[in-house]
Amino acid sequence: MNTIEVCLTPALIDQFDLKDKIVVVVDIFRATSCMVAGMGSGVKSIYPVAAVEECFALGKEGKIMAGERGGIKVEGFDIGNSPFHYMDKACVGMEIAVTTTNGTLAISKSIGADEILIGAFLNISAISKYLSQTNKNIIVHCAGWKGTVNLEDTLFAGALIDRLIATHDADGDPALVAACVYHQNKLNLVAAAETSSHAKRLSGFGAKEDLAYCMTADEFEVVPSFKDTVITNLI
Amino acid sequence: MNTIEVCLTPALIDQFDLKDKIVVVVDIFRATSCMVAGMGSGVKSIYPVAAVEECFALGKEGKIMAGERGGIKVEGFDIGNSPFHYMDKACVGMEIAVTTTNGTLAISKSIGADEILIGAFLNISAISKYLSQTNKNIIVHCAGWKGTVNLEDTLFAGALIDRLIATHDADGDPALVAACVYHQNKLNLVAAAETSSHAKRLSGFGAKEDLAYCMTADEFEVVPSFKDTVITNLI
Repeated sequence: MNTIEVCLTPALIDQFDLKDKIVVVVDIFRATSCMVAGMGSGVKSIYPVAAVEECFALGKEGKIMAGERGGIKVEGFDIGNSPFHYMDKACVGMEIAVTTTNGTLAISKSIGADEILIGAFLNISAISKYLSQTNKNIIVHCAGWKGTVNLEDTLFAGALIDRLIATHDADGDPALVAACVYHQNKLNLVAAAETSSHAKRLSGFGAKEDLAYCMTADEFEVVPSFKDTVITNLI
Repeated sequence: MNTIEVCLTPALIDQFDLKDKIVVVVDIFRATSCMVAGMGSGVKSIYPVAAVEECFALGKEGKIMAGERGGIKVEGFDIGNSPFHYMDKACVGMEIAVTTTNGTLAISKSIGADEILIGAFLNISAISKYLSQTNKNIIVHCAGWKGTVNLEDTLFAGALIDRLIATHDADGDPALVAACVYHQNKLNLVAAAETSSHAKRLSGFGAKEDLAYCMTADEFEVVPSFKDTVITNLI
């Protein structure tokens, strides 16, 4: 059996050996959910960048500028951080440059892994199928919130462990913790996620529909992968 | 309602504001379980120190030298890191100087809090009663393992949240995570803790009895508190 580990926040990623591993980056509310929704709706590619300025520079090259700071669309950007923005027909065939508070940081801190995939509930079956067919050990890298552990990314980590039970052993206590959190809540993931700190923060921005959608399984059959500077779909 | 937060590892303690809070330090396997067992068995006071050399220096003053490195008693010390060592009649009325891998670090990183208490399953009712009668917000500081998150300390955090449900609201996602982990496993805490990484590490040192004992609730009616350099019993 191969193994699946869980890093509960980017603040702890240095405790993990990324070498030869597949890292699945997850930021359910909402960066990786947006990326999956976009890829599944015909977006050509996505460039995650750290700074707002980098996004503007890529915008001048014709890319759609996307992202938020503190949950609100950056002024002057084309779209914010809602999966529905990424599913707009204006995005089909386009390249998107995106900067977010947590998701892009988790991606950049995953560099050094053999492969970096973008996970969300929206593509959990597609990514599980892909992972189950590799012969690699996995690390789920939860983006969290400003370095802290969050509930929704931990729920996803537990759900992914559950889906890979035939091929990958949960390895280490954070993986056991994530599995417990998922099993305790699997019958009502949306209600569980609504108790999270992030859900409470975002409810002030009218993002309730986004949150429920981000907890929906299997809307898209895509496996987005980050390589060099860009995310494209592997399947 | 006051609040109860959970810091899942000392590597994340900088994310918490300790000011005016009561911090409960927990290192179930085995530092805080030992401290509680000792205090409950008549030990006069316990001096947690970072380095082996400091322990030897305190030993010269007549204190019992206790502690482990990598799970094994330090050569030349009087006792190791088993709660049964601390319960020996030779320890009654004595002062103990102790150094451990994780527990003493978590105590030193809690300095700045209004009060630092020593928690374990062995005194969970006593400490819950004490906490429920304060009008203070609480942080449970899990000692973890070399900076990583562990299962048994997370289980304790969840159990303490459960005991304080009438007076303290779980605050923040790590607290929600700990509560889930506890509820998922509360009917068989020993079996859950035996799946932890630390249990697997310690099984090589013949510590199976220790582990089951450390998961036992309410053996002792003590509330050990760390102040200045020393732990004494508050009640």
